[in-house]
Amino acid sequence: MNTESDIKRLFNPKTIAVIGATQDTSKIGFKVMDNMVSGGYKGKIYPVNPKGGEILGYPVFQTLLDIPEETIDIALIVIPAKFVFDCVRLCAQKNVKHLVIITSGFSEVGNHQEEDEITAFAKANGMRILGPNMFGIYSRSVKLNATFGPKNIQEGQVAILTQSGAIGIGMIGKTASANIGLSAIISIGNKADLDETELIEYLITDDDTKIIMIYMEGVKNGANFVSVLRKATKKKPVIIVKSGRSKRGAMATASHTGSLAGEDAVFDDIMMQCGVLRAESIKEGLDWAKFLVESPIPKGENSIIITNGGGLGVLATDACEKFGVNLYDDQAKLKDIYENKISSFGSTKNPIDLTGGATGVDYERAFDASLTNNEIHSLLGLYCETAVFDGGELPQVIESKYAEAKKVGKPVIFSLFGGAQVESITQQLTLKRIPVFGDVYEAVSCMGALYRFARGVQKPIESTIIPTINIAKINQIIDSVKAQNRHFLLAGEAQDVMMAAQIPIPKSVLAHSTEEAVILANQINYPVVMKIVSKDIIHKSDAGGVIVGIQTEQEVKDAFETIMRNAKNYKSDAVIDGVEVTEMVKKGLETIIGARQDVSFGPIVMFGLGGVYVEVLKDVTFRAVPFSKNEAKDMLFSIKSAAMLKGVRGEQPKDIDGLMDILFKISAIITQCPAISDIEINPVMVYEQGKGVKAVDIRILLKK
Amino acid sequence: MNTESDIKRLFNPKTIAVIGATQDTSKIGFKVMDNMVSGGYKGKIYPVNPKGGEILGYPVFQTLLDIPEETIDIALIVIPAKFVFDCVRLCAQKNVKHLVIITSGFSEVGNHQEEDEITAFAKANGMRILGPNMFGIYSRSVKLNATFGPKNIQEGQVAILTQSGAIGIGMIGKTASANIGLSAIISIGNKADLDETELIEYLITDDDTKIIMIYMEGVKNGANFVSVLRKATKKKPVIIVKSGRSKRGAMATASHTGSLAGEDAVFDDIMMQCGVLRAESIKEGLDWAKFLVESPIPKGENSIIITNGGGLGVLATDACEKFGVNLYDDQAKLKDIYENKISSFGSTKNPIDLTGGATGVDYERAFDASLTNNEIHSLLGLYCETAVFDGGELPQVIESKYAEAKKVGKPVIFSLFGGAQVESITQQLTLKRIPVFGDVYEAVSCMGALYRFARGVQKPIESTIIPTINIAKINQIIDSVKAQNRHFLLAGEAQDVMMAAQIPIPKSVLAHSTEEAVILANQINYPVVMKIVSKDIIHKSDAGGVIVGIQTEQEVKDAFETIMRNAKNYKSDAVIDGVEVTEMVKKGLETIIGARQDVSFGPIVMFGLGGVYVEVLKDVTFRAVPFSKNEAKDMLFSIKSAAMLKGVRGEQPKDIDGLMDILFKISAIITQCPAISDIEINPVMVYEQGKGVKAVDIRILLKK
Repeated sequence: MNTESDIKRLFNPKTIAVIGATQDTSKIGFKVMDNMVSGGYKGKIYPVNPKGGEILGYPVFQTLLDIPEETIDIALIVIPAKFVFDCVRLCAQKNVKHLVIITSGFSEVGNHQEEDEITAFAKANGMRILGPNMFGIYSRSVKLNATFGPKNIQEGQVAILTQSGAIGIGMIGKTASANIGLSAIISIGNKADLDETELIEYLITDDDTKIIMIYMEGVKNGANFVSVLRKATKKKPVIIVKSGRSKRGAMATASHTGSLAGEDAVFDDIMMQCGVLRAESIKEGLDWAKFLVESPIPKGENSIIITNGGGLGVLATDACEKFGVNLYDDQAKLKDIYENKISSFGSTKNPIDLTGGATGVDYERAFDASLTNNEIHSLLGLYCETAVFDGGELPQVIESKYAEAKKVGKPVIFSLFGGAQVESITQQLTLKRIPVFGDVYEAVSCMGALYRFARGVQKPIESTIIPTINIAKINQIIDSVKAQNRHFLLAGEAQDVMMAAQIPIPKSVLAHSTEEAVILANQINYPVVMKIVSKDIIHKSDAGGVIVGIQTEQEVKDAFETIMRNAKNYKSDAVIDGVEVTEMVKKGLETIIGARQDVSFGPIVMFGLGGVYVEVLKDVTFRAVPFSKNEAKDMLFSIKSAAMLKGVRGEQPKDIDGLMDILFKISAIITQCPAISDIEINPVMVYEQGKGVKAVDIRILLKK
Repeated sequence: MNTESDIKRLFNPKTIAVIGATQDTSKIGFKVMDNMVSGGYKGKIYPVNPKGGEILGYPVFQTLLDIPEETIDIALIVIPAKFVFDCVRLCAQKNVKHLVIITSGFSEVGNHQEEDEITAFAKANGMRILGPNMFGIYSRSVKLNATFGPKNIQEGQVAILTQSGAIGIGMIGKTASANIGLSAIISIGNKADLDETELIEYLITDDDTKIIMIYMEGVKNGANFVSVLRKATKKKPVIIVKSGRSKRGAMATASHTGSLAGEDAVFDDIMMQCGVLRAESIKEGLDWAKFLVESPIPKGENSIIITNGGGLGVLATDACEKFGVNLYDDQAKLKDIYENKISSFGSTKNPIDLTGGATGVDYERAFDASLTNNEIHSLLGLYCETAVFDGGELPQVIESKYAEAKKVGKPVIFSLFGGAQVESITQQLTLKRIPVFGDVYEAVSCMGALYRFARGVQKPIESTIIPTINIAKINQIIDSVKAQNRHFLLAGEAQDVMMAAQIPIPKSVLAHSTEEAVILANQINYPVVMKIVSKDIIHKSDAGGVIVGIQTEQEVKDAFETIMRNAKNYKSDAVIDGVEVTEMVKKGLETIIGARQDVSFGPIVMFGLGGVYVEVLKDVTFRAVPFSKNEAKDMLFSIKSAAMLKGVRGEQPKDIDGLMDILFKISAIITQCPAISDIEINPVMVYEQGKGVKAVDIRILLKK
């Protein structure tokens, strides 16, 4: 099945059957017809209803089979749930390509079985399903508004995918009133078949779409989702609003759509890894879309604030720090550029302060100076209502400078602050799709999103790394654990897995006699720890079976004898395997590295500050597997306490290569050993650069 | 001088002279006159201009002295800076009470001297100054718009103080278009005399004012500011937007108004301590004001979300967690309350989901059920545009339910999501001052602000604690340090200060010879640490002047000699006082406690996680002195790693009383010893509850 051309037809259908079309204007079966007809759909519409007759001038077919076409691109299904499967069977007969099932009453209310059966049937018959439980599809290229939402959809270049029908309908309204044009809007409902992943895959190649915006509540099939997002964000901005951020919100999501939200921190980190722009609220997401769809990509990091109010300038400066917009800082050059262009009361330090006396001409001059200078890459234009400048000429100035900026490829965003006049100017400019906001934080947030996208696009594409490790050996260990009906590995087994992957662990050997203990200890280097090994003695310390800080041959001898004596005293019939002699791990920086099969995303890895802090501060970060070398490095330095890795208080930098090596190796284990569900190494002791790392405590769990 | 009645006259003047009034409509001297006259000011207006004539029907006096009044309440000064001082002298002659100096060109451009002279002169002559460098004052009670801002000011109950004139003018416009009514707006400009503190003091008692909102860039005289804020927030919500949050923003502030912004984290913590609602952006602050001014105080924490869309409900749930709004969670009671009130497709779990099919009647029923139930204390009403409910009846439903909620003292806020119709409904309701927002995050942010205010008001007022300590002894130590022209205390001196305050420190003594060292070490208990003491050797470790873990008499002898030898090698001419022999401190939880004379706030204390983490994670919190016992406890538990204090991984809880004891004692030191600028104890070692704390390393600096 060729996915791309397949889905292309969903967005560009030539023939649509509306099954359940009706003349009853209060019904969805009418609304959809009405929207298609009045939207000016370019293809053929075939209403189907056993009652026959005519709807909006279209003859109604009593059954699908009566339609005089060989194939039907889309069957839009708006009949009650109990009739849907029969209808789908007819669709197969009629050679339908896509089932757009608006009808609800399936998995979202617990009716999984029927949904699964329909999906399986459709698949077996070469039909794709969008939905069920959704509001339809809008596709600009063929002027198709096959939704029961609002009639008025602004045409443009933003494609919206939404898991919530209600929010989708709200967004159609909101985008229309904010003059954000859409190339498509698709309600994906229960995702019985088609989900975000395949739709994004298509939208990447769709020339009508410049921005992809997604509202979602849960991730299914996360590994594919990740890989398509990584591809998409290299081409176009992808904005995602995902609800269920909070614990309680995640519970609400579960009861609302049956999706498992997963851990929000994981979602957040992986979206960042994928280059996705994650917005907190729908408003923020739509603001970003509004700006990004119109804006060129900045050619560099030097941003300039032009303002007529110092206070607004300071607020914008704060916002720039918050949203990662870099203000151009070369005071000498700034003076050069602006000195003769602005009033002597003003400031050439960025923010460029034109002062409250500034008029349209002053703004023009400052913009001209900024647009013609190659050191300046983006602009924030701020205007605060004043008593002096009546603002009448402002719209013309903004419009012409905005157009010039676009021509020279510099993004510009505006924030206008004030009363009724400012609002009317804002409306006026919004009608022309010029990005104007009322609050500086909103404007700067948009600029920050643009820069995050631009930086992602400019990052070179690197190959991801999955090192070759001895998987056969690891599987052998796992098989023997499974044979014992265990779902967790014993310490020694976990160490064997590490050794198979060549992850450094403390040296450790089993001695069976005093003499052997001495020989082995001498090979390890002092100090060493000695521990009784017996499956009959679980609490080794209680049994007097552990001695630490052993420094010399003599101490090894004494320790061996003491431990054996203690063990006998503790449990006279214990079967003793011997005494383990282990390298005493030097104190280093304690970190934690983990990997797991995540419910949403499949194989993921985790890194963080170790010891007690991992629990208290939760200073950990997640990535989807696989990843590149630079991503691994980014990951390590993305924790809050990253400074510890660089070395604080005069310490040397830590062994980053050693940490990366473990990250890659456990990503190989978690990917290639599907029996393993969880790996946690805590602590991974990290030493100075070049001095390595050590996986001290290892916990490995198997899938149940 | 009686401040209150004094400032009352500023807000309720009977006579105003406008010095610099003019017929030239392009000038501020006209704008102000025009605004006063057309605003319907209830008192007498006396324009003053040497040219004489008439302005807007008012006869112009050639000099202030010609005005036929014994006293003038306000002289509004709009003449060029160079004439201001002469004018102020005339004002003194004429018995003016308040100088409102709009004129700029003083400290904000570096002209500190003239500003200081004018201020001193005014003070000596019983006149108060507002400004200079500001846009005027609006006071609703006498219908006074003595600003050069917009004419149209909405009357209401929000008082605004602003340090930035431009932003103030913008806010007049913004409040008018958002229908937020003002009781006053005052531009405080350079704060030569009157600052936020005295104005807030007055506004607390002003019955016309229900909310105080402040835009500020820097704090002067922070200790008074803190104490008035603490008083104010027990009566009315105080909303503050302070710019200069970011490092670069703080620099921009400094160059913009000459204010020192101070550390933003300190400002943030102390505002929280004072019960202030700090908004990030002006938009957020105005949103809060709009809601809080109309809203009753909730009687409890149980909040309910009513929605017609599951997705919106989840988003609101996320927002509730973010903004500290507690959703009512008793599933059984919720079922009782709503089961028969909502459609069977809906959900009685909070969010109460009426589903997309809900009409006005459904909303009414759900609201009625919520308003009549005493377990429910506040409501979030969400509406998502749907294809089913045409929304026409929505405004009536919202209006009537909002009015009923007000009657029963339950706060309600609405968020309506959709297109043109939703926008027109929003506008319609805004005209009636019903709090309706477009985005759920904005609405919930407002509800969160209301709850933060309510919780602050409900907190019992506790007495603050400054314990009695031996200040005389501490001053004696300081005097001897000063006598040596030093600005820092040596370790021993700092320890003496701790001892004077009865703050526990490790046992420590100074040995002058090997023999003495041995005797003293035996008294302390092993292990001990030995350290060189010399004012010529600051970096003791670098000099080989520190040896730790000394266990025996012999080791003490060896250590003494090694340290002395190393010190001589490091700096042959160093004056050596001896070698300090100190108890080696048992490992506990490392915390940091500090105190300082803050440039903005005066005496403040700091607490945080100690060791290297204070640098890397900056997990510290600040409070203004003095504070109560509960505030001290809140402070300790407000750090991110507070769980460490409770004990993690099965550890016992830590000695909180011991930490509080140190907090109180160093707040006594920093308050009562004005010569001290900084105290830092890092680490303060904390042991299990009942086992005390130990101030290990103490650094004390004196003011220069």
